[in-house]
Amino acid sequence: MELYGYWRSSASYRARIALNFKKCDYNYLPVHLLKDGGQQHQQAYRQLNPNGLVPTLVHGQVILHQSLAIIEYLEEKYPRPSLLPGSPRQRGAIRALALDLCSELQPLINLRVQQYLKQQLEVSDEQKQAWLDHWFTESFTAFEQSLNEVSGEYCVGDEFSLADVCLVPQVYSAQRFGIDLDAYPLLQSIYGRLQELPWVAEAHPDKQPDAES
Amino acid sequence: MELYGYWRSSASYRARIALNFKKCDYNYLPVHLLKDGGQQHQQAYRQLNPNGLVPTLVHGQVILHQSLAIIEYLEEKYPRPSLLPGSPRQRGAIRALALDLCSELQPLINLRVQQYLKQQLEVSDEQKQAWLDHWFTESFTAFEQSLNEVSGEYCVGDEFSLADVCLVPQVYSAQRFGIDLDAYPLLQSIYGRLQELPWVAEAHPDKQPDAES
Repeated sequence: MELYGYWRSSASYRARIALNFKKCDYNYLPVHLLKDGGQQHQQAYRQLNPNGLVPTLVHGQVILHQSLAIIEYLEEKYPRPSLLPGSPRQRGAIRALALDLCSELQPLINLRVQQYLKQQLEVSDEQKQAWLDHWFTESFTAFEQSLNEVSGEYCVGDEFSLADVCLVPQVYSAQRFGIDLDAYPLLQSIYGRLQELPWVAEAHPDKQPDAES
Repeated sequence: MELYGYWRSSASYRARIALNFKKCDYNYLPVHLLKDGGQQHQQAYRQLNPNGLVPTLVHGQVILHQSLAIIEYLEEKYPRPSLLPGSPRQRGAIRALALDLCSELQPLINLRVQQYLKQQLEVSDEQKQAWLDHWFTESFTAFEQSLNEVSGEYCVGDEFSLADVCLVPQVYSAQRFGIDLDAYPLLQSIYGRLQELPWVAEAHPDKQPDAES
């Protein structure tokens, strides 16, 4: 298995956590999102991933993009240990939380959107920071409220799941962008527990071969 | 089953197509995204859906938000006819295309983002249109390239799937925003076929009780 990714990309980070959790061996192939005008835009990479985004998983004949599609694929090929444990109801809650982060928050704050704001709309640094603050606050406020309903040791109940896989990179990115997390005590305490899990710790951006200081 | 939605919301439209496809009876409960400052922000609705977004599905004790989580839940409860037919590889391709639209494109063009651009960043009408054009072009260009690899009668092979469920509302919204579709012949021809399917036609925004002229 080969995973094309970038150390600091949230979506790559999710895929690494899932691969580690399922004890899948994989080669990590860095795609530098800033060097050479963005290596993700190069033709060879675009043939694997037409969106020019990371990550991409290659597994024999299977070439897959979109982190959540990759993780659902891993779940089907390697069902134990499961990232979607429990009843359809519980699996629904897990997927809803995962999508709250991956489909509502991350797309609004990722590199290409920040570049568009800066280059096309010529927003100031303050406006860019206000944009980030706004969407993090919207998302994490709702997420904290959901955690009040469904969390236990982890995001949904007491078992590690896809929701936790998605939370870790999002909090990492919040910290990177200077987002104040005081209003989210449950989110913070779950994040603290998650960081101690070996399959999470090993997936940290700083531990990747393409990490920069 | 109850579905809270809004006639013109892409995510609600997806859920309606999936419910129709699986022949699930449901009550449709309109949430007006513009009236009363946005009924999705009212406390009673926020208790069902902390994000203040549509749709929300209520099925007995199950309260679920996020259209893709709702559809995966329906798929688990009512597996036939399937929206994720085929091998793990094919299911991966279907989910990747669905997420390309739901996680990369739709979050950037939805109502709340357009409101933020207008109200907080005070962009001009031209800048707002350029924003929409840019993200539709990015997304549909990649989507067309993916269709070249995996499509048949429908987005992935010859069976209707979750990818088609997600394509229909996205093309509807492109047309609404005046996006030129000439560069995407495969996308257009598949969209044409999809519109003739009864479970798609019945889910059209104009056919909903809250439709406006």
